Amino acid sequence: TDQDWMKLALTLAEATTGQTGSNPMVGAVVINDGRLVGQGAHLRRGEAHAEVHALQMAGERARGGTIYVTLEPCNHHGQTPPCTEAILKTGIQRVVVGSTDPDSRVSGQGIARLQQAGLEVKTHVLQEECNRLNEAYFHHRLTGLPFVTLKMATTLDGKIASHTGDSRWVTNEISRERVHELRDQYQAILVGVQTVIADDPELTTRFKIGGKHPIRIIVDSQLRTPFTAKVIDVSTAPTLICTTEAAMKSEHAEQFQAKGVQLLECGAGNRVDLGLMLQQLGKQGILSLLVEGGGTINGSLLAEHRVQKVIAFIAPKILGGKRSLSAIGDPSPDRMADAIELDQISWEQYGNDLCVTGYVKPTTSDEK
Amino acid sequence: TDQDWMKLALTLAEATTGQTGSNPMVGAVVINDGRLVGQGAHLRRGEAHAEVHALQMAGERARGGTIYVTLEPCNHHGQTPPCTEAILKTGIQRVVVGSTDPDSRVSGQGIARLQQAGLEVKTHVLQEECNRLNEAYFHHRLTGLPFVTLKMATTLDGKIASHTGDSRWVTNEISRERVHELRDQYQAILVGVQTVIADDPELTTRFKIGGKHPIRIIVDSQLRTPFTAKVIDVSTAPTLICTTEAAMKSEHAEQFQAKGVQLLECGAGNRVDLGLMLQQLGKQGILSLLVEGGGTINGSLLAEHRVQKVIAFIAPKILGGKRSLSAIGDPSPDRMADAIELDQISWEQYGNDLCVTGYVKPTTSDEK
Amino acid sequence: TDQDWMKLALTLAEATTGQTGSNPMVGAVVINDGRLVGQGAHLRRGEAHAEVHALQMAGERARGGTIYVTLEPCNHHGQTPPCTEAILKTGIQRVVVGSTDPDSRVSGQGIARLQQAGLEVKTHVLQEECNRLNEAYFHHRLTGLPFVTLKMATTLDGKIASHTGDSRWVTNEISRERVHELRDQYQAILVGVQTVIADDPELTTRFKIGGKHPIRIIVDSQLRTPFTAKVIDVSTAPTLICTTEAAMKSEHAEQFQAKGVQLLECGAGNRVDLGLMLQQLGKQGILSLLVEGGGTINGSLLAEHRVQKVIAFIAPKILGGKRSLSAIGDPSPDRMADAIELDQISWEQYGNDLCVTGYVKPTTSDEK
Amino acid sequence: TDQDWMKLALTLAEATTGQTGSNPMVGAVVINDGRLVGQGAHLRRGEAHAEVHALQMAGERARGGTIYVTLEPCNHHGQTPPCTEAILKTGIQRVVVGSTDPDSRVSGQGIARLQQAGLEVKTHVLQEECNRLNEAYFHHRLTGLPFVTLKMATTLDGKIASHTGDSRWVTNEISRERVHELRDQYQAILVGVQTVIADDPELTTRFKIGGKHPIRIIVDSQLRTPFTAKVIDVSTAPTLICTTEAAMKSEHAEQFQAKGVQLLECGAGNRVDLGLMLQQLGKQGILSLLVEGGGTINGSLLAEHRVQKVIAFIAPKILGGKRSLSAIGDPSPDRMADAIELDQISWEQYGNDLCVTGYVKPTTSDEK
Ligand SMILES: [Zn+2]
Ligand SMILES: [Zn+2]
Ligand SMILES: [Zn+2]
Ligand SMILES: [Zn+2]
Repeated sequence: TDQDWMKLALTLAEATTGQTGSNPMVGAVVINDGRLVGQGAHLRRGEAHAEVHALQMAGERARGGTIYVTLEPCNHHGQTPPCTEAILKTGIQRVVVGSTDPDSRVSGQGIARLQQAGLEVKTHVLQEECNRLNEAYFHHRLTGLPFVTLKMATTLDGKIASHTGDSRWVTNEISRERVHELRDQYQAILVGVQTVIADDPELTTRFKIGGKHPIRIIVDSQLRTPFTAKVIDVSTAPTLICTTEAAMKSEHAEQFQAKGVQLLECGAGNRVDLGLMLQQLGKQGILSLLVEGGGTINGSLLAEHRVQKVIAFIAPKILGGKRSLSAIGDPSPDRMADAIELDQISWEQYGNDLCVTGYVKPTTSDEK
Repeated sequence: TDQDWMKLALTLAEATTGQTGSNPMVGAVVINDGRLVGQGAHLRRGEAHAEVHALQMAGERARGGTIYVTLEPCNHHGQTPPCTEAILKTGIQRVVVGSTDPDSRVSGQGIARLQQAGLEVKTHVLQEECNRLNEAYFHHRLTGLPFVTLKMATTLDGKIASHTGDSRWVTNEISRERVHELRDQYQAILVGVQTVIADDPELTTRFKIGGKHPIRIIVDSQLRTPFTAKVIDVSTAPTLICTTEAAMKSEHAEQFQAKGVQLLECGAGNRVDLGLMLQQLGKQGILSLLVEGGGTINGSLLAEHRVQKVIAFIAPKILGGKRSLSAIGDPSPDRMADAIELDQISWEQYGNDLCVTGYVKPTTSDEK
Repeated sequence: TDQDWMKLALTLAEATTGQTGSNPMVGAVVINDGRLVGQGAHLRRGEAHAEVHALQMAGERARGGTIYVTLEPCNHHGQTPPCTEAILKTGIQRVVVGSTDPDSRVSGQGIARLQQAGLEVKTHVLQEECNRLNEAYFHHRLTGLPFVTLKMATTLDGKIASHTGDSRWVTNEISRERVHELRDQYQAILVGVQTVIADDPELTTRFKIGGKHPIRIIVDSQLRTPFTAKVIDVSTAPTLICTTEAAMKSEHAEQFQAKGVQLLECGAGNRVDLGLMLQQLGKQGILSLLVEGGGTINGSLLAEHRVQKVIAFIAPKILGGKRSLSAIGDPSPDRMADAIELDQISWEQYGNDLCVTGYVKPTTSDEK
Repeated sequence: TDQDWMKLALTLAEATTGQTGSNPMVGAVVINDGRLVGQGAHLRRGEAHAEVHALQMAGERARGGTIYVTLEPCNHHGQTPPCTEAILKTGIQRVVVGSTDPDSRVSGQGIARLQQAGLEVKTHVLQEECNRLNEAYFHHRLTGLPFVTLKMATTLDGKIASHTGDSRWVTNEISRERVHELRDQYQAILVGVQTVIADDPELTTRFKIGGKHPIRIIVDSQLRTPFTAKVIDVSTAPTLICTTEAAMKSEHAEQFQAKGVQLLECGAGNRVDLGLMLQQLGKQGILSLLVEGGGTINGSLLAEHRVQKVIAFIAPKILGGKRSLSAIGDPSPDRMADAIELDQISWEQYGNDLCVTGYVKPTTSDEK
């Protein structure tokens, strides 16, 4: 059935998790007379789209067949020629589409082109699964901003470190490995300067085999990042410091740039303007951002409603202590009713740790 | 099979949850020639034991039969005559036991008595389930102390209230109803005086039908509990204030006693000696204690390793804020490795809330 | 909740499976102020009803409480006084009922009596489960006939024995043990005379402990049952031979009766009139009948639509062979569409054997 | 992990079910630095192997990578050049294999070639799943014979038709659709001549879209197949009649051949020698055979232990009747212990029908 073949296309797309960069993950399958004659996935930005691989494998047998694509075929000349033309050339007669393209300017144009040429087009097959697969891509197309996911790793009482800053380890090995998988899947990772000063993290992806390092972004209003910090070494991965107009003019700024660190001016105030920051990151083509703390940057992003998704790892232990560090810093809301609510909750178990995933519910004020 | 009949006895015992007070929940079933001839449960402290009900229903047909009891039959004269004698009188030939009595002074005596009289006795049938059913009773018998369960209800980031003290509501209705079920099951409920001052709670069990109010215990070193506090009204349920030697001599003390509030002297120091407090509560026959905060008392009990079980309700929302209140107060440990670890973890889902239950792992120092 | 307490009452009733004879299985629970104060089940025909046991355990605490009963309380003087009066005496205020009594002459009278006395009555709580528990009892009350269950045990190709009659063993040990459980649960077991001649079965319940032997019924139109047959020995269990008017007058008939075998005249024709037979068995108080073959009697009962339920054990083996014996004999219908259809199908797995249970679907002609 | 990527390769292979003819289904995946760079499946006999498709998609990025293949790569020149050479050319450094090639003459040669060339080879990853996927192919390679699956569709009492031959319908629509899926998956379908005479079936695959017709094989010792039978029309699918030496010489034989029907001489006796028949079908490259009755051919094949797998659809209905037709004909064994036993049993539910699948257990005599 259409659903079975789309499911195969989805499986092909999912197998490319973490490797398509700012491009969406897409899978395609070509069927003729009930038989598989081609299959493909988009492997890497700048390379052939999924449809091209699948049609190439199908060759002559695409004629009269059906192509299943998880995302609406493109209709414009990008780094590759439009897939609609590739499809038309092969004599495909029917196109089954999962997600339509979220970009309102181009959405539906691929489908329209195919229909005008007389092909039968069916849309919205396993649409929810296809949308979810590229949630960051879709969010970026619709808003121009990166999709922001806040990652937390806390004890049962919400603590991330002792008052001395000791945090080795909150969660177990399985959870920590899962964090490296997340880093591999996100285009960029973001931390506040306090985390850099306190922990001097590398913010890289550590896998047994392969894996991509995310772009490392530091929110640092006064350019307090030490020159000796590990993240300043851009030989492993690019680093970007988001700072203020004033700090951009300091001597420090030049020195960072001399080391190959990119600086991004985010407003003329004393503190980085987070809204401006995300707009600029979005323009630079960063679709997905994994926020890994500390509490201050977490708190600000949440309070300004700039977070779309939360992934919380919870270890079954209790640290306690008023001076112990919590995952989320100020602002401190007056009312419990001001808490940020999550929905579409799911739970996973990693050993004895628990991982709660949810999406930030739009508030009334967001809806204005 | 023996397991099937013991399972029925367990079902009968579980049906008495919350109503046996400081007595264990016990179920009994009498079988003769493969047929059910009697069944019973211990319903209320001071009333007939499970065996007696089951044997009474069986009447003459107990002769030659088998009795299944979830807990070793008693062999001493208490409020009722010993069940061993009741069993022997009926001509029962075989006794199948779930848990043996945990009290080392009497453990095995019931079984020994029955064996000496020539009955066949089989033990440890579904023992783990039978032990778990009366975990508080067993803990009290072995240590003389109440079984202490810490209940938490927090946001995903571990907060219980905003900096203004607003906590309406952290968790959803299902979770809150579940808390009232817990209050019904525990003999006593304990809070710190700060909670009384801040929230003025009733600390009663609110069910649609029935339910027992737990004994309300306040830890209050300087007798700061307001006379107008709802918990001071002992017409709904008994109240007990744990305080210090010095405070016992104050005028306040007399006034509380005049209102029918019991005072318990817990040490000569400035603060209530929690170890002494638990010893005295244990001696007063309190087997199970549900601790409901606030952070100070939670933190002290945990740090002194006086908690056996933790039940944490977690709502999928994030409050954030440095001044927001955490579930567990001081002391603030230096190292993450000092966190209290839980094991035998289980998870339950109440709507979108999550409930994590675990038992405090004994630490090396505990084992000395 | 009402459902939880009714579930406990159901558990109590189920524990009496096989021991209430022609009486229904009934469980009762008494609750006061949310607490269990009494529980009971009807243990054996002629003894106290479930309500009586439960109320006796409750004693004074029944007053103002609620009684949960799986079956409408009786309102007539039978072997015991009416339960409605027992309930009224105790001061119970609310009665929750699972099944209403199926007997149209008395149905609802118990409930009406209680309501007239001012009690609150709620019915149909877990009704489906309560009805299913006593499906034979209900069928007998409604039709006057025994509830007939056909048990089959075949190979995957529907064979019960080789052409030589060898049938050791079709199914595995677990399945065969399950058959003995069925015999324990049914009041009577029925076979054709050919099975007696061919296999000389005992038709008793063989358990490790206890178990009831069913009444053994042989359909034997010409009284061909050998005097040496094991089933003729009534010292283990009663035996009843259903035969014809003519055969009743034979010398054989007297000899059987001399041995203590009961004879039942079923019509003046050459063959036993199965409809007449079931009517008479129903009148004798036989509520449930397990038919265990052979093929001839199975075929006749099915074709005459006298079977309510089928329990088919299927072993994963193939015997094959045109002369091998099938489970169901003649008549041989002309069309596949004449097959007897089952619904409410359920499947169970016993080792590698499979057990299919279903209820005979009423045909159009049945509905006239 | 290796298992995850092999699972993807298996998914690709499974998607080709029914379309590779006598070739095995094979899937391949190429990974470099933890990233998917190529994927492919063998689509159709005579076309590129899975490895070739996957390596072609990978292009330059295969160098230094790992290829996952569900079946050991071939090392001989067939219709396509050996895959071992294709792998070596690309600079792949590691090969992960599911099943080794079952053909004892070539087994391990592909692996040996790759190891000699210095590649790291890991075998037996998800081997059981990979073997099961091509069970017919493996059986054929090991024995030279087709893998024989007996399909039955019976009532609960093992009947396939009434005494008049009426069999519309035993099973429900879902089961019957599933049979057409089986026909699509098997290379050939076999029936006895009696079935052709009685039912005049087409023996084709009827799908909504696509599907392959199996080769239709009739066992017909005396060439009694009517010239008007639907299976004689070879315009839809090829037909093959297995007959005897004597019948081959008859005038009929020529007439069949003139119509395009292939005749296969299977022994000089009165009846088709089934062993000889299977040997010849195996030599003709028929790997998988679905036997669809009637009873006579089913019985003979089973009795001669020529069946490997049984798929039994069971409808929850009872036909009864001595003259009704059973699924399996003669021979009629003397003892129940002579029944053919199945193991590795699995059950599936299609609506109210049940489908039991099992593999014929080797008997002692088979093992000689
Ligand atoms: Zn494209
Ligand atoms: Zn006792
Ligand atoms: Zn009654
Ligand atoms: Zn190859």
